[in-house]
Order: sequence, then C-alpha cells, then structure tokens
Amino acid sequence: MNKKMISFVIGKILILEAGLMLLPLIISFLYKEDILHKMSYGIVILLLLAVGFLMSIKVPADKNIQGREGFVIVSLSWIFMSAFGALPFVISKEIPSFVDAFFEVVSGFTTTGSSIIPDLTKISHSNLFWRSFTHFVGGMGVLVLALAILPKYSPTSVYVMKAEVPGPTFGKIVSKLSSTARVLYKIYTVMTIVLIILLLFGGLNLFEASLLAFGTAGTGGFGVRNGSILPYHSAYIDVVLSIGMLVFGVNFNVYYFILIGKVKEALNNEELKYYLLIVFISIALIVANISKSYSSILHCIRDVLFSVSSVMTTTGYSTADFGKWPLFSQVILLILMFFGACAGSTAGGLKISRVILMIKIHFAEIRQMISPNRVISISYEDKPVSLKMQKSIAVYFVVYAIVFMAMLLLISFSTDDFLTAFSAVAATFNNIGPGLGKVGPAYSFANLNDFSKVVLSFAMLAGRLEIFPMLILFSPLTWKLK
Amino acid sequence: MNKKMISFVIGKILILEAGLMLLPLIISFLYKEDILHKMSYGIVILLLLAVGFLMSIKVPADKNIQGREGFVIVSLSWIFMSAFGALPFVISKEIPSFVDAFFEVVSGFTTTGSSIIPDLTKISHSNLFWRSFTHFVGGMGVLVLALAILPKYSPTSVYVMKAEVPGPTFGKIVSKLSSTARVLYKIYTVMTIVLIILLLFGGLNLFEASLLAFGTAGTGGFGVRNGSILPYHSAYIDVVLSIGMLVFGVNFNVYYFILIGKVKEALNNEELKYYLLIVFISIALIVANISKSYSSILHCIRDVLFSVSSVMTTTGYSTADFGKWPLFSQVILLILMFFGACAGSTAGGLKISRVILMIKIHFAEIRQMISPNRVISISYEDKPVSLKMQKSIAVYFVVYAIVFMAMLLLISFSTDDFLTAFSAVAATFNNIGPGLGKVGPAYSFANLNDFSKVVLSFAMLAGRLEIFPMLILFSPLTWKLK
Repeated sequence: MNKKMISFVIGKILILEAGLMLLPLIISFLYKEDILHKMSYGIVILLLLAVGFLMSIKVPADKNIQGREGFVIVSLSWIFMSAFGALPFVISKEIPSFVDAFFEVVSGFTTTGSSIIPDLTKISHSNLFWRSFTHFVGGMGVLVLALAILPKYSPTSVYVMKAEVPGPTFGKIVSKLSSTARVLYKIYTVMTIVLIILLLFGGLNLFEASLLAFGTAGTGGFGVRNGSILPYHSAYIDVVLSIGMLVFGVNFNVYYFILIGKVKEALNNEELKYYLLIVFISIALIVANISKSYSSILHCIRDVLFSVSSVMTTTGYSTADFGKWPLFSQVILLILMFFGACAGSTAGGLKISRVILMIKIHFAEIRQMISPNRVISISYEDKPVSLKMQKSIAVYFVVYAIVFMAMLLLISFSTDDFLTAFSAVAATFNNIGPGLGKVGPAYSFANLNDFSKVVLSFAMLAGRLEIFPMLILFSPLTWKLK
Repeated sequence: MNKKMISFVIGKILILEAGLMLLPLIISFLYKEDILHKMSYGIVILLLLAVGFLMSIKVPADKNIQGREGFVIVSLSWIFMSAFGALPFVISKEIPSFVDAFFEVVSGFTTTGSSIIPDLTKISHSNLFWRSFTHFVGGMGVLVLALAILPKYSPTSVYVMKAEVPGPTFGKIVSKLSSTARVLYKIYTVMTIVLIILLLFGGLNLFEASLLAFGTAGTGGFGVRNGSILPYHSAYIDVVLSIGMLVFGVNFNVYYFILIGKVKEALNNEELKYYLLIVFISIALIVANISKSYSSILHCIRDVLFSVSSVMTTTGYSTADFGKWPLFSQVILLILMFFGACAGSTAGGLKISRVILMIKIHFAEIRQMISPNRVISISYEDKPVSLKMQKSIAVYFVVYAIVFMAMLLLISFSTDDFLTAFSAVAATFNNIGPGLGKVGPAYSFANLNDFSKVVLSFAMLAGRLEIFPMLILFSPLTWKLK
C-alpha cells in the first residue's frame, strides 16, 4: 500500500476543493450575505489549503499506484471532500448537525439529490449554490476533474479514473488520460452552459437557471425552491429539462466521438440505441396506461416524458405525482430506477450497458441449456464478451444485491415501516434522491436518526463509485498488503 | 426433439397420477361422501388412464433423450399433472373455476401453499386430502417418484432428475439412478410417517395429523382447518412442527449418507452447517429484537423458532403474527424467504448452497480486485469451484431477478397496490405460500383475476423447477431443434 501516494493525491484534491469553494464565497459577497456566511467559506478554504498542503507537501519518491491504491484514493477522496464540504453548512448554522450536513453534501457529490433540508427558503444563496454545485462537480467525477486540471501526478492514474467513471465498459478513449479528462470536462461544461442559456430563455434568473442546470447536468436533482421544479412548471421548462436529463444520461464517449468527427461511430453505440429504445417503450407503455385520466394527450406525454427522464437518469426532479398513477406505470418507473442510464454518464443505477449484458447473458444461458454442446457466445458493441467479462457482470449484480440487503438490514433497525426503509436504500444506493413513504418527495430524510443517515451516506458513496471502491476501503485485507 | 419419448414419459406419469388418486377416492368412501365426490375422482382416474395409455401405448424406438427433452418432460409433466389434478375440485363443484382449481393444485404440487379457498370448512375430506397429498408428492418430485417405482424407461433419465431436484449441486449419488430415487423416497416416506406419529401423540386425529405432516414434509403449508395451524397451537405441536420443517429443509443426501453409515461425511456437509448457523443467528437476532414484548422468554423462543423454520423452509405455516414484529425482525424473515433452505430438500427459495456460493463469490471478487495478479479461488464442500460454476451461480441469480421483474410487471397490470403485487410474486416464485397485503395470511389469492392467477401459477412452477425448465419449454428455439 503506497500510503504516501494516497495522502499526496488526497492533499491535492483538497486544495482543488478549496479552489471550488471560491465560487460560493464570491456568491456570498455578490448577494451581500452576512459575515457568518462569508466567514464560513473563508475559514473552510483556509482549512482545506492547510490540510491539503500538509498532506501533499512532500512529493513521494515512489509514485507508482496499483488498482487497490486507486480504489482507496477514490473512496477516501470522496469521503474527505464531503466531510470538508459539509463544514460551511455547519459553521453558518444553516445545518447545525455535522451528520446532516455530511449527508447533504454526500448526496450532492454523488448526484443523489436526497435532502435533509425541510425548507429551502431558509438557506442562503451561497449555501444553495455550493449544494447544487456539488452535483456538477460530482457528476463527471472529482478525480477526473483533478486529472483534467492538475499536472500529471502518476503514470498509473488510469486506475483512479477506472474506479471513478461509472459503468463496466471503459477503455476506448483512455490512451491519453489527462487530455481525455480535459475533453470530457470541456464537453460537460459547454453542455451545461447551453442548458443554462435555454433555462434563461424560459424566464429563470441566472442564479436559478445555473443551479437547476447543475442539478440536471449532474443528474442530481437538488432543487432551488421548495417543491422541486414545480415553481417553474411550464411546457417549455419541462421539455428543456426532460431533454436535458436524457442528454446527460448518455455515455460521454458518444459526444467525444461526435466532437472528433466520428459521427457514424458515435451513433452506432449499442448502449445508446437500447437507452433510447427503453425510454421510448417506457413512455409508450405508461402513456397507454394513464392517458385516460388526461384531457390532453400532449400534456400526458409531457408529464410521462419528464417522469421517465427524471427516474431513468436517477435525477429525481418531479412534476407529476406518479405515486398516484396505476401500479403498472409505477412498476415500470421502479424498474427504470434500478436500470439507470448509460455507463460513462452522470447517472446512477445499474447502467443500461450492464442491464443489456445481463439480459443477453440470461438468453445465452437458456440457449446454452437447450444446446449444451454448442458454443454460445455473446457480443456487445460488435465485440465478443468473454466468459470472464460475463462472470464479472453477473457477479456485480450479486454484489449489488448483497450490499443492498446488508444496508436494508441496517436501516430497518431504526425505521418502522418497510416502504420507507426499502425506498430509502433504493433511492440512495441508486443515487436517485427522493424515496417513498417517510422519505418521499413531500418529506425529507431529516427525520431519520444519525445512524441511518451515516449508513445512507455510505450507500450513496457506494452507489456512485459502483460499490467496489468502498468495499475495498473497508476490507481489512487492503490494509494488510504492502 | 424426441417428441415421441416426451409423450411416452408424460403418458406414464399420468397413469401414475391415476394411481395416486386412488387415495382420495378411498377417503371419499371412508368418509361416506356423496356420489358427486366419489364420482369426481373416479371419472378423473379413468380419464387419466385413458389419456395416459394413449400417450404411452407405443414404446418409442429411439429412447434417447438429451438435456432439453429432460427439461420439457419435467415442465410439461408438472403442467399436465396439475391440470388433471385440478379436475376433481371442478367436478365436485367445490372449486367451480378451472383456473382457481389449477392454481390450487399447482400451489400444492410445487409445495407453495398459496390458496384460493377462503373457507376450508366447505371442502370435503377427499378434496382436503388430495390437496395436501399433492404437497407430499411434489415435495420430493413427481418424476423422482416415477423413477423410483416405474421400470427404467431411459438410460439418460439423469436429465429428468437433474431438472427436477432443486439446487445447484447434484451428482454425488446419481450413479444408480432408480435405486437412488427409491432410497430417497423411502427416507422421505419413513420421516413423514414418524412425523404423523408424533402429531398423533399431540392429540390430532389420523386424518389431520397426516395432512399436516404432508404439508410439513413437502414444506408446502396447506392447512386443514381455517387459521393455518392455530387450531392446534400448543407448545408440543409448535416444537414438533418447527423441528419437522427444519428437518425436511435439509439436503436429503445427508440422510442418505447417514443411512449407509457415512455419518461423519454426512455431518461434514458444508451446506448443513451454514443452514443451521443461519437458523441459529436469525433466531438469536429476532429474539433479542422482540423479547421485550414477551413475558416468557421460552414462549418468545418458541414463536421465533416456529416463524424462522416456517419462513426459511418456505412452508408458510404461521403461529405468531410476525407482521406486528419490529421491522428489523421482519426484514430478517424477508431475507430468509429469498434464501430458502438446503438444495436437494423439499424447500423453495434460492437455496442455502447458492446463497453461500454467492457470498463466497462476492468476497472473492473483492479480494481479486485488491490483488488483481493473484489467483483467487473458491472452494465449496472441500472442492474448488470452477470459474464456469461461479458464472453459472451468478447467472442463475441474474435470471432469477429478470424473471421476477417480468412477473411483477405482469401482475402489476391487474393489481392496485405494490405490497400485494410484490409479495404475491415473491410468495409464489419462492414457493412460500401466503404473501402480504391483499394476499396476506388473513386473505386468500381468490380475489385476484384469472390472468394474475395464471401468471402466479407459472411463477410457482418456475420457482419449484428452478426457472430453466419453464423458460426452455416456452423458448421457440427448443421446438425448432431436431
């Protein structure tokens, strides 16, 4: 275990976070907030710089890191970033409890969108900005950002990126890592700015348009005012956000390929095709199921499009109350929550590529049993999927289920109804946001006890980092090895 | 596809069912039931003999069957047996709807125990007997029974047994198939008779003792009177049934080894150890969780032992209303429902051996990621588990989840609340019996519509036969191949 290198990288990340916090500091000056708010960001920035420099002052002689160091760096970075990121809320006394503030910031960075704040009108502009800005930062990945803007600190940083970028397929564009990271962030930023401009056309002011765009781009779902996006509810805003969420749910490789002129290759992406197919079928089924209760079919399609986009990309914004739709429609949405959107996007869940591979493996297994002596192979993105890859996809799902079960058991210890417990775990582990029952959209996660909030914070981190980095961090074996 | 051989074997099975139906016919004479009841079994016996002889009159020249024929034989046999087995209920007008009667008999043969009969006092002795007797027959397997008592009809009948005996590990005792089947059935019958005698000591009459013993031995859970086993509720009966359910949840290989004197090898069974460990830990956790609400700790342990045994073996008998226990205890029971008991027993669910292997694969995957260059191997029952086996265990779980999801979607179409829909699928697919909500212990499955009943009937069959035989039966590819 190259502990010096781990400390070094985390130190750099904390310095980076200090830089990011300059933005809410500026906001607090722009909105002429009281001295407590300005101070809170100022203090934390100084603290981050101090700790960051201490941790990274000595450049390690041995810069080599392996897979396990990559996992540990990623998981510890996210925990440290969240812990320091929570401090301004605590110091400004807007979220006095550290556990609450930690939960909120983890929810932000992991682009979950679950909140412990019952009333957003009591939160200052600087804190509202920081809260939504964590969605933007966490969406593409904290370490990808570090790779993009910091000087290269290790030739093996591929491990770090591998651990942070969601989804099973990663590889095509890793040849020049830091330049790739830079391109990814450029695409991401430009797309977010386009979204802000579109929202400005819808009549929102710059502050609200930016925050909603952060929530959409990161597929996070933190709102700016109470009632999610209902205060801005209009056909135009609904459609802009629906398309926006879907666009950020696409694998960013697709945009990269379009950018470098390989449009045909980009549109040939198998995951993209299935993603759009699933969106289309889900919308068709739900519209057929609920259209009777709408007077206008267009209005119905608009509500369904928004709900499907929000749920599938695990954003969590809501316009229509789909809790009142027929069970068939609700079950479709529930399944989409677990599916999630594309790998390499900002969305959570299992990811479409994994789901497609799971379904292919399912049918291959049946074909194999029918013809045990034939060699049944699977291909994905026009390439054969090895037995090892098939196993790792299936095993990921087993691990997913085991961790889900363990967290459900922990949460059930201090919750009294099943719907609340189950949906709290599902909403955080899949990085969706609002759950059902006592953690539903009309309530907040504030009423859970501290133990549950800590468990769910780790559920969000595990979900965002695709489980293994967190499991490896807490595995005693990791720390025993040299 | 050797269709002639498929028809031949199913014909034999139907003749066998005619033989089994002699028992309820005798019961209807013993209890001097009206002519309609005697007739109903008489008619169906004649019908079974006629159809059975027609199907098997010509011995096929080509007796060879492969894996796919094995799967088709097993799934079609179970469907045919259930369809004919439903007729006496329809003819005697005690369950006038064929779909209802089919559901009830499928529930019986698959040892699920879900019922559409709201009031058992209106059911005659012969029908009550046949209903519970299907638990006994289905528990060990219809085709295993055929293998045991019919003359060998194929040298490749190993495929049939493989498809019907639950669990991933099967192999140790298949060398002499028909004699093995005979030994298994002997053990099973003797153990059931012992249970009947023990229940007689508890004050039950022979009829009720036999029926309860069938329900326990098959881990099915059909009752004899309204209120499950509450009418017999006593410390003695509770303990006898609790131990009884646990005993029938053990892999029958263990008893086989004890019988042939290999006691040490039998007790060294890894699945058995984990099974008992899980039972013990679950009881300890639940007792610690709920003991406050009991005045007597012994009474508490007794209730918990019964609930854990009933749930884990997927029997479904109930004494205490664990719906009122704290959520933590309920979640433990819920997890046990999915776990099920041992492979090669009469219980449903995923089976302990699969769960243990899944957990081993989970930890191996973490270890592998920590040390990517080391070869991480898993062993089970002191033997290494190949990569192919690991894949097939993980894939089974993927298939399980996909089928579960598909059935949930179908059921949600005609159900209005999630708890009812989810628990109806979970209770039938895991062969447990009662669900929650509108299919809970206090209600019955009678209120669902015919479409849902058919879907859940196939859920029970898929669960009992471990999914693949049913999927293969309905796969067009199966019928395309020569």
